[in-house]
Amino acid sequence: MTSILVLHGPNLNLLGEREPEIYGGVTLEEINRRLEKAGQALGLEVRCFQSNSEGALIESLHAARAWAKGVVFNPGGYTHTSVALRDAVAAIGIPVVEVHLSNVHGREAFRRESLIAPVCAGSIAGFGWRSYWLGLQALADLPG
Amino acid sequence: MTSILVLHGPNLNLLGEREPEIYGGVTLEEINRRLEKAGQALGLEVRCFQSNSEGALIESLHAARAWAKGVVFNPGGYTHTSVALRDAVAAIGIPVVEVHLSNVHGREAFRRESLIAPVCAGSIAGFGWRSYWLGLQALADLPG
Amino acid sequence: MTSILVLHGPNLNLLGEREPEIYGGVTLEEINRRLEKAGQALGLEVRCFQSNSEGALIESLHAARAWAKGVVFNPGGYTHTSVALRDAVAAIGIPVVEVHLSNVHGREAFRRESLIAPVCAGSIAGFGWRSYWLGLQALADLPG
Amino acid sequence: MTSILVLHGPNLNLLGEREPEIYGGVTLEEINRRLEKAGQALGLEVRCFQSNSEGALIESLHAARAWAKGVVFNPGGYTHTSVALRDAVAAIGIPVVEVHLSNVHGREAFRRESLIAPVCAGSIAGFGWRSYWLGLQALADLPG
Amino acid sequence: MTSILVLHGPNLNLLGEREPEIYGGVTLEEINRRLEKAGQALGLEVRCFQSNSEGALIESLHAARAWAKGVVFNPGGYTHTSVALRDAVAAIGIPVVEVHLSNVHGREAFRRESLIAPVCAGSIAGFGWRSYWLGLQALADLPG
Amino acid sequence: MTSILVLHGPNLNLLGEREPEIYGGVTLEEINRRLEKAGQALGLEVRCFQSNSEGALIESLHAARAWAKGVVFNPGGYTHTSVALRDAVAAIGIPVVEVHLSNVHGREAFRRESLIAPVCAGSIAGFGWRSYWLGLQALADLPG
Amino acid sequence: MTSILVLHGPNLNLLGEREPEIYGGVTLEEINRRLEKAGQALGLEVRCFQSNSEGALIESLHAARAWAKGVVFNPGGYTHTSVALRDAVAAIGIPVVEVHLSNVHGREAFRRESLIAPVCAGSIAGFGWRSYWLGLQALADLPG
Amino acid sequence: MTSILVLHGPNLNLLGEREPEIYGGVTLEEINRRLEKAGQALGLEVRCFQSNSEGALIESLHAARAWAKGVVFNPGGYTHTSVALRDAVAAIGIPVVEVHLSNVHGREAFRRESLIAPVCAGSIAGFGWRSYWLGLQALADLPG
Amino acid sequence: MTSILVLHGPNLNLLGEREPEIYGGVTLEEINRRLEKAGQALGLEVRCFQSNSEGALIESLHAARAWAKGVVFNPGGYTHTSVALRDAVAAIGIPVVEVHLSNVHGREAFRRESLIAPVCAGSIAGFGWRSYWLGLQALADLPG
Amino acid sequence: MTSILVLHGPNLNLLGEREPEIYGGVTLEEINRRLEKAGQALGLEVRCFQSNSEGALIESLHAARAWAKGVVFNPGGYTHTSVALRDAVAAIGIPVVEVHLSNVHGREAFRRESLIAPVCAGSIAGFGWRSYWLGLQALADLPG
Amino acid sequence: MTSILVLHGPNLNLLGEREPEIYGGVTLEEINRRLEKAGQALGLEVRCFQSNSEGALIESLHAARAWAKGVVFNPGGYTHTSVALRDAVAAIGIPVVEVHLSNVHGREAFRRESLIAPVCAGSIAGFGWRSYWLGLQALADLPG
Amino acid sequence: MTSILVLHGPNLNLLGEREPEIYGGVTLEEINRRLEKAGQALGLEVRCFQSNSEGALIESLHAARAWAKGVVFNPGGYTHTSVALRDAVAAIGIPVVEVHLSNVHGREAFRRESLIAPVCAGSIAGFGWRSYWLGLQALADLPG
Repeated sequence: MTSILVLHGPNLNLLGEREPEIYGGVTLEEINRRLEKAGQALGLEVRCFQSNSEGALIESLHAARAWAKGVVFNPGGYTHTSVALRDAVAAIGIPVVEVHLSNVHGREAFRRESLIAPVCAGSIAGFGWRSYWLGLQALADLPG
Repeated sequence: MTSILVLHGPNLNLLGEREPEIYGGVTLEEINRRLEKAGQALGLEVRCFQSNSEGALIESLHAARAWAKGVVFNPGGYTHTSVALRDAVAAIGIPVVEVHLSNVHGREAFRRESLIAPVCAGSIAGFGWRSYWLGLQALADLPG
Repeated sequence: MTSILVLHGPNLNLLGEREPEIYGGVTLEEINRRLEKAGQALGLEVRCFQSNSEGALIESLHAARAWAKGVVFNPGGYTHTSVALRDAVAAIGIPVVEVHLSNVHGREAFRRESLIAPVCAGSIAGFGWRSYWLGLQALADLPG
Repeated sequence: MTSILVLHGPNLNLLGEREPEIYGGVTLEEINRRLEKAGQALGLEVRCFQSNSEGALIESLHAARAWAKGVVFNPGGYTHTSVALRDAVAAIGIPVVEVHLSNVHGREAFRRESLIAPVCAGSIAGFGWRSYWLGLQALADLPG
Repeated sequence: MTSILVLHGPNLNLLGEREPEIYGGVTLEEINRRLEKAGQALGLEVRCFQSNSEGALIESLHAARAWAKGVVFNPGGYTHTSVALRDAVAAIGIPVVEVHLSNVHGREAFRRESLIAPVCAGSIAGFGWRSYWLGLQALADLPG
Repeated sequence: MTSILVLHGPNLNLLGEREPEIYGGVTLEEINRRLEKAGQALGLEVRCFQSNSEGALIESLHAARAWAKGVVFNPGGYTHTSVALRDAVAAIGIPVVEVHLSNVHGREAFRRESLIAPVCAGSIAGFGWRSYWLGLQALADLPG
Repeated sequence: MTSILVLHGPNLNLLGEREPEIYGGVTLEEINRRLEKAGQALGLEVRCFQSNSEGALIESLHAARAWAKGVVFNPGGYTHTSVALRDAVAAIGIPVVEVHLSNVHGREAFRRESLIAPVCAGSIAGFGWRSYWLGLQALADLPG
Repeated sequence: MTSILVLHGPNLNLLGEREPEIYGGVTLEEINRRLEKAGQALGLEVRCFQSNSEGALIESLHAARAWAKGVVFNPGGYTHTSVALRDAVAAIGIPVVEVHLSNVHGREAFRRESLIAPVCAGSIAGFGWRSYWLGLQALADLPG
Repeated sequence: MTSILVLHGPNLNLLGEREPEIYGGVTLEEINRRLEKAGQALGLEVRCFQSNSEGALIESLHAARAWAKGVVFNPGGYTHTSVALRDAVAAIGIPVVEVHLSNVHGREAFRRESLIAPVCAGSIAGFGWRSYWLGLQALADLPG
Repeated sequence: MTSILVLHGPNLNLLGEREPEIYGGVTLEEINRRLEKAGQALGLEVRCFQSNSEGALIESLHAARAWAKGVVFNPGGYTHTSVALRDAVAAIGIPVVEVHLSNVHGREAFRRESLIAPVCAGSIAGFGWRSYWLGLQALADLPG
Repeated sequence: MTSILVLHGPNLNLLGEREPEIYGGVTLEEINRRLEKAGQALGLEVRCFQSNSEGALIESLHAARAWAKGVVFNPGGYTHTSVALRDAVAAIGIPVVEVHLSNVHGREAFRRESLIAPVCAGSIAGFGWRSYWLGLQALADLPG
Repeated sequence: MTSILVLHGPNLNLLGEREPEIYGGVTLEEINRRLEKAGQALGLEVRCFQSNSEGALIESLHAARAWAKGVVFNPGGYTHTSVALRDAVAAIGIPVVEVHLSNVHGREAFRRESLIAPVCAGSIAGFGWRSYWLGLQALADLPG
């Protein structure tokens, strides 16, 4: 069965617990559960991982080379500052889809440029937890 | 039945006819046909329109207020230069999803900032004609 | 009788129909009617035209050379992006007053610089539909 | 009777005495006389004040809270450099209209951005002494 | 017989009628006549088209794929602002030569960068109507 | 007894009178009274001065050389624009602590850089009138 | 008893051991001891933590939600580069005071802008270890 | 007898009293005395004025129109921030020479651009009090 | 007989010897021979000169005042860095046409701005050795 | 025996396993083995460490103070974004040589500026694994 | 007898021959003659040299170490582009005064920053040939 | 025997004679002697050349094509300003290693970007004369 890594960056462990008026009341666990279920419908095994550490995220991407067909990645605040994560995405040779819960283009100026997007297969932003779900579908449909 | 406008900006009428190694061999007509069919599966009536004229695109957005629940919009080269289209998107009060065939973040510097994305519900880029298809799904799932 | 062109740029046809809390409940038609009446009081024939097309606005400026003493022009979103409209204003040799409904200086950064203002006789912003009316008065008082 | 402060910034005391080919042969006194007269026609008491001192201009704005309905303000060279004047305009809670004799948008690059305009009700530039007169009319028509 | 499109952008329809001290007293019609004649001497059929509309210019470029060996294009004010025209030039796969009547490099800063030139075969500026004529010669000599 | 100058820049004389929802209902007089009392507890004589004039602030700093051990200085809007005040702070040879009522880092972009902070002993921002009080404590603890 | 987290960022573990002429001869342990003691005088329990890891600092902030009333945070070199820490500060909903030992405004240009300060309650810089102590006092006095 | 205004800007009243290792031990009074004497040798009456107030400097320039042939002006910290002083220099129609004690080009970046120099007859920097003396000589030799 | 200087800048002596896939296999000598021949057809004496030295190029331009009607100049790498060559072109009072073999607008960012073009009569780029030939024709047709 | 730390930053653990056409087929282990051997020839004990974590790299630098004479450091993607690593290099007081496998100056713009190089003893880039070897030699020859 | 080098940069050999309305009708030879004479009055031997070559100017500065007390240097167009000349001025250890005939601060933006001025003793601009003469006086008065 | 060009740019002829505290007391001749000797140990014939002229350096690079396997090049002040030298390095088709005596990354901002490094094989900076020696070793080890 084809496997997909869903990778959550810094602060996403707080989802659902705080600021529900902004980020909704859905917890990260619930999102992961929904994505695993949606994966099943698409014939994909979905494994989820969250870390606040840039290094751990890099290593999670490295490890995915061995078992995953692709990655749905929300780099959170590292989106705009991490050349190291960009290099990891470029190095692993499997397609990575960048996703964001909110429409980052409509927020602070420093959130408008992503260092990581240029080396991704594509990017999806603004649809809440459904951004991940759309990312799964995009990966399911990628050729080869 | 809920209706969606799929709006194609400048030069997209050439799809499939030229540079197939870049943009694929699928014509705009074929993409429209696929989207109409995918819409049916989602319970959506999909109407497609293409124009190379900024003014005609603005008017198409204005008109959609009367009949569409949302818009999947590929603004093409106007993405980076048109405040007027941005104002139209902001004014019409129905959700607009910006889509791009290619991963615009990985191309020339002037393609990295979108004037239109900040006023859209969300954006999707990099998945070829499937960017439109993901946009349809995103609209189908939007509340309200 | 001296004639004045009042020229409305993109999206202004929506005035009064949408977002009345921002732009007020007055429609473009009503504004035009008020300006025609105010023109009569100043001894001016006022002719109004709106277009969402950059090309049509350019041609409207070109045509005004033949019949108008001056132009009150709200370039809307083209204010910040159109060198072609700037060239048209510079070319026609009759005074053009740039007007804006809102105080563009207090909005997004990209709205702060006007490409068109440097070749206008003057500019007026922030007074709602009265910006046009002040523009008419300014033209009425221009020498020659 | 409603009262308006007309406030002239630095170097405007030289009007009419020097460089008449640029600024016209009308002195500041004559402009003030005309504005007082125009005010009478609009039912407004117009009081004029000029200072070359940033501090004195700030204090004049502060004092106007007690007696004026609004301010027509030509900040001259302080337009582009004074955060303190901007803060004063923002603090006093009565509408301020920024006016300029010349079309500042068509002059040196450092004159193109106004620190003060974003906190004004509106701005008028390019009509010589009539910029003040249009400002008076704009204030006369403001609601409330 | 080999055919060439001579494409004139916004405001060029005014040539010869206004500001003859700058742009010379030659009308666009006269320029077109001269270019047709010069084309004959080079064994080229020259067809001329002018539009003030970005969309119409894009479509004229698209259509030229079917009948023209190359294009001599003066994009006027769209030179500096139109990504859509750039994309059209890049897409049509026939050589385009950018020409300008005046020496754009010696004018306002915003006229110094051309969005279109990077995808053209070459560019020629500063020689009045002869810029077009040199462009014709350049196309006549291109291999293939 | 050791003496400290508390120096208030432009517009701070309006404190407490206007916009109490932003700046609180405490007047400048009341703040000065509190600081004098807090000074007594720290064994410091506190003298307060406010001016809207850049020149008067400079001269107040010059004069402090003769009698004060240090200065708690809120430069208000001059923070971001006055090289002359920076030079005065650098010249007087006694420690100056820059204070701000609000968190200037979270406001408009032009408020983010202070010309004066680089030559101060330190800076404190965001604690309302307590910013001054913390500044007093910082000065009380400075060696020598 | 109210509790406060004192959080030290990267390289601060070296304090007192190296470059005493710059950072003083006081070790981090000694600073922590002094702050705990000063906390007692203010009725605050002070808990100190240092890490060189961005991820560990983020998690320390997350955890503080459960037990601390506020945070005194010296983000060290992450001040200028970490959007992830900024997001953590913004998410936890308790007041954070940014402190720096040295006057960062007077050092290299890249140290002048803090990504974190805009979402803090306030900031204090330049007073050596007393910057922390002033931060404690500021938190002790915050309402709520 | 021909008269010259020597105008000293902010903080120059401190000359000789503080930081003699940088600015030398000569007081402003002594410099003025030397310049008056040097003026006599050149057949010039030299009148000196210092102010820390931008407004007073502007008025001093205005007044000089009535009695001075030229001005030797050290604008101090206002050099880099005052459009109002620039406008005053441009308006008065007598030659102004900008002088600086130190070599401003070799100091902080914000001291490298002078707003005032572009409208002066010339500028002299780096020669201590002799910069003024060279300025006097330059004015003595200017034609007419 | 009218004479024209064809001036080649740095590294152009390598033409044809190296990187023929980029610059073609034609040597500088061969280009010069072709231009001399093309000159004869136009009634022009063509004299060619190449130097890698900025100073020698300046002196060659100076000398041309005495004998040449105009200059066809390829400044090579000095195009983007030499104010001295710009001043030479501006000083000599005969028309200079800037030419480039490649389309410099489509290359590295630092090649996009020419310091020399603003003071030239016109510019031609992108047509290989024919850029020179078109430059000769442009000069042949210049009036007077 | 003198000891040297060879420190490898993020993603370098993938060397030799992936993209061998870019980075060569040599693994990190093999590079470490070669450097240890080369160290022996230079009388240096070489200890190698790799981490993807910014914090772990900082701590590795801190620890090296106790045992190493110098460091050969390839900061990988952290080169361009880590002020914290810069501060660590500056703090440890032993010479650090920055090395890169590829010629970073010829890659993307964001790779052109190193935050770390300014506080290093020197830098070496572009020679593949030999960049490390040259770094070892440079350290071996440093005085003291 | 003390000796001074007067060094003229590129294009200054054309002085007096061309554009006399701008640069005056005085030739470089005549200026040199006047400076030699003025030098005699000051007890200085003045030796003049002009070159259009950056390398020759550098070598002239190097050679001056052996015989000159100081240099009066007009770097012409190299002022804004030559780090090599800056390094030469900084290296030779004798005072250099930068002079310009025209007021460079009032010309094109690229002429406003001098790479050379920061390492000079001082600078003088705007007084025609008298700029050199004032430079001689400044050197005559320098201590040591 | 394989030959290497060691090329020294402007001002390097002064090495050892001046500012020995910065650049050391070793003369250029002595460095050349050491490099020739080090070359012998590596089986390389080392030929050294210095020039202050950009043109002569370009020609020296051109000539090296005929006899050298590679170049060790210290472009001095031309590093940051010479597109012509960059083009020469790119054109000659043999590897060039850029070297600098000092750590240019830690000096003035304008020294941080090298125009030449992007087209070099690699770069080495900060090790005094040993930078050249490391460059020789790097060339000796380059394949082919």
